[in-house]
Amino acid sequence: MFIFTFVNPSARIIYYLQTAMPLIVRKHSVWSVLKQLKTSNMVLKHDWQIFVNWYQSKKYTKSTFNPSGFTDVLISLCQSRRFIIEDIITQEALLNGSYSYGPLGMELKKNLITKWWDSMVLSKERVFGIETPQHMIGSLNSEDKTMTLVETEVLRAILRNKNLSMKETIASLEELLKKSAILRSNLLEGAFQLYAKSLNLVNEKLPFGLAEVGVCYQPVATEHETTSSAVRAGEVEVASLVWFSSPRTSGQWRDYWVRQRLLWWRKFARHPSSFTANDFQDENGIKGTALYFSFPWGKEPIETLLSLEEKEVVLKHLGSKSELQGRDGRKTVVPHVLSVSGNLDRGVMAYLTDSLHLSEQIDSKCSCNQKQVLKLHPFLVPIKVALDVGRGSTGELRQVCEGLFRQMLEKRINTWPGYLETAQVSMEQLFTKYDEMGVIFTIVINESTLESGLVQLRNRDTTMKETMHISEVIEFLTKYIQES
Amino acid sequence: MFIFTFVNPSARIIYYLQTAMPLIVRKHSVWSVLKQLKTSNMVLKHDWQIFVNWYQSKKYTKSTFNPSGFTDVLISLCQSRRFIIEDIITQEALLNGSYSYGPLGMELKKNLITKWWDSMVLSKERVFGIETPQHMIGSLNSEDKTMTLVETEVLRAILRNKNLSMKETIASLEELLKKSAILRSNLLEGAFQLYAKSLNLVNEKLPFGLAEVGVCYQPVATEHETTSSAVRAGEVEVASLVWFSSPRTSGQWRDYWVRQRLLWWRKFARHPSSFTANDFQDENGIKGTALYFSFPWGKEPIETLLSLEEKEVVLKHLGSKSELQGRDGRKTVVPHVLSVSGNLDRGVMAYLTDSLHLSEQIDSKCSCNQKQVLKLHPFLVPIKVALDVGRGSTGELRQVCEGLFRQMLEKRINTWPGYLETAQVSMEQLFTKYDEMGVIFTIVINESTLESGLVQLRNRDTTMKETMHISEVIEFLTKYIQES
Repeated sequence: MFIFTFVNPSARIIYYLQTAMPLIVRKHSVWSVLKQLKTSNMVLKHDWQIFVNWYQSKKYTKSTFNPSGFTDVLISLCQSRRFIIEDIITQEALLNGSYSYGPLGMELKKNLITKWWDSMVLSKERVFGIETPQHMIGSLNSEDKTMTLVETEVLRAILRNKNLSMKETIASLEELLKKSAILRSNLLEGAFQLYAKSLNLVNEKLPFGLAEVGVCYQPVATEHETTSSAVRAGEVEVASLVWFSSPRTSGQWRDYWVRQRLLWWRKFARHPSSFTANDFQDENGIKGTALYFSFPWGKEPIETLLSLEEKEVVLKHLGSKSELQGRDGRKTVVPHVLSVSGNLDRGVMAYLTDSLHLSEQIDSKCSCNQKQVLKLHPFLVPIKVALDVGRGSTGELRQVCEGLFRQMLEKRINTWPGYLETAQVSMEQLFTKYDEMGVIFTIVINESTLESGLVQLRNRDTTMKETMHISEVIEFLTKYIQES
Repeated sequence: MFIFTFVNPSARIIYYLQTAMPLIVRKHSVWSVLKQLKTSNMVLKHDWQIFVNWYQSKKYTKSTFNPSGFTDVLISLCQSRRFIIEDIITQEALLNGSYSYGPLGMELKKNLITKWWDSMVLSKERVFGIETPQHMIGSLNSEDKTMTLVETEVLRAILRNKNLSMKETIASLEELLKKSAILRSNLLEGAFQLYAKSLNLVNEKLPFGLAEVGVCYQPVATEHETTSSAVRAGEVEVASLVWFSSPRTSGQWRDYWVRQRLLWWRKFARHPSSFTANDFQDENGIKGTALYFSFPWGKEPIETLLSLEEKEVVLKHLGSKSELQGRDGRKTVVPHVLSVSGNLDRGVMAYLTDSLHLSEQIDSKCSCNQKQVLKLHPFLVPIKVALDVGRGSTGELRQVCEGLFRQMLEKRINTWPGYLETAQVSMEQLFTKYDEMGVIFTIVINESTLESGLVQLRNRDTTMKETMHISEVIEFLTKYIQES
């Protein structure tokens, strides 16, 4: 086993594996070989971790290395830890957001929305938030893949009216369809409707932006569609910035926002390079940039930036052209528009995929367990801290927990009241559960806390345990989260 | 004018007015009489304020005192300050939420949602957030006032298919309707769907709750509906808690939540007694409590609490009865359900109404101006602080403003960058504008700030100006908002 004398410890194992490549294709063979090495010193543990990461990256991010295995693990973790709730979740459903969010999933999405809003609206002097209706009555383009909203009663009344002829029935229905509202498929139209009325907020001065986060309806064609009348609408949480700028500066602004948005997505990722950008031009000649995330099964778009020039802007606007005009210095111009539109449901899935860290653990009996840790960014993680009781008088320890729980909430640190759980489980089982939930710290209150005031903090990422005085915990956590 | 010798200063004017009551009915007469008093000392100013409050309360909260006047002022303020955006807003539209939210309105609503979530989910150990789809495919009850969602393309294809007989067309459409999704009208159904799957979060132990905030569709009948096929759907932002408890404790829980919810609404109000509660029983015998707000035109419900007993719970649940069972101590029981459902759009309108303070100002030329101050609770107010420049070199002062703006955002204090405004207006005009926006503090940076570091803070409620060192501003504001 001369290979262990190499200088770079991580290079060793990888070298070993590269020379021993055929072993990989036989399932578990590598593991058994490595287990035979029976190494237990820290250096090797470090190597082991690096090897595992490398092996996992091979196994799970390249399509030749069984991506569906990773997806299956992700889906089952999302279900068991109540990120999402649905009886059967396929890769397709995951991508289209066809599921309900459980407590953890909805908090994760909430955090993502908050971060988006902070970055795009609160910290931008010239961006304003709006909220437009989800449905609008307008002329329908029959080519559009839209969803029409009809009052069930009215539709039934027409269908069941025996006095109407075929022609009259069809005419009534066409009339109903014409007057019916459609559900929005994007947030661009809403921003256009408020544009003229928002100009006075900025004293008619360009550039400025209108931001909105809300549900849009984008019907998805599914493989399981059996009849033409089956309807399957996809609800998508869209985060949209519509940026109005002078034609003179629109190119610079486009570059600015593409850079900003790519940086934003990467900021919360463990593997920032999984987020990429690509320019495109659609069939109508509209230029844009799409941002992608690399899922195990391939790249999928998560955000689109579209550049609309004068022609398209005038087309989109329903009123007169003069209403569109804003000021660029002393000139009056029709603005160019940049539409930045992100799919936050897919964003949630992207970060769940990005953060799922799989590793094999060899326990004392030399059996292999897969360890799953959701290494979500502290800003995004739905539950920051879990509070549990260790050995000792349950009643008193719970009181301490309740007190700490209240203090955490005052500082808005989302906390899991593990001390309420009555089922007996070992600490290791608890840590496994919390790692799968992404909980950053587990705080254990036990007998000695009552005497010394000391509590134990276990870190998700390092798995190290620290002892700290209970009075210092809140400040430590606040700082840890803020500075990450 | 002997009345001014009374001991209690506020009693004086009220006494005067009570004796001079007939004056009130003639518009402006009271004002002119009082103006003739030509009083300028502080004591009278205090009296004046109390009189104005009293007069306003007479004028605007009792229906005999022209409530539509107050409503008109409110609507026009909401429009001019971009709380809501719509060309024509009627009292009916206000009540049904038929408008888009401008920047201030949407931030106000966001703050209300955040407060609801903090109080109902984050600070409750046994309440979990969920997010369910807005539409669901289910058996349609034709009696229900629901909105059906049909794919426009599919509907058109059926209508335009010349090969179909009348019978076939109707059959296709009935089939389409049966397979179509309906938009949810409440959040109760969604919580029921996730109930059984959420039981394991709490180890099957009752009580626990599922909370959700989201848009529901509640079609509103309008007076302006001209044809039977005209559709007008009301989108409502509903905040819902569905609380599952053992039958043994459900009565106590109902009392607990009614009290909690009434307290919550009152907590942010200037006139807490405008929020009231009333028990009721609906046509199906379901008991509940409604919370009301007194609008100028009368009481309107803003939240409903419904008690569902075993029979209704089993009816609502689509699966088997055994799935419903939770643990109450050692017993296994079908839970009773309390559905708490608030209309947050109407909540926004309630707080806008509650906070609008009207008073007449007499300027140096003895002409009367109506002063409008939106005295929203610091937690709810969309913009806490406005940053403006006074006299001095604009370039340098703006740099100071930008620095302070960044610092405010880091502390998540929503700040209005007034320093970007190029139009020349007087400080008084600025204060008027910010009072109408509800801005709590206006910070003015001027020439002397560059030398001494001192800035001026003007308070919305007291109209007093304070001088403070720029380094102390952030801490002062954070404390002020937290402790209010």
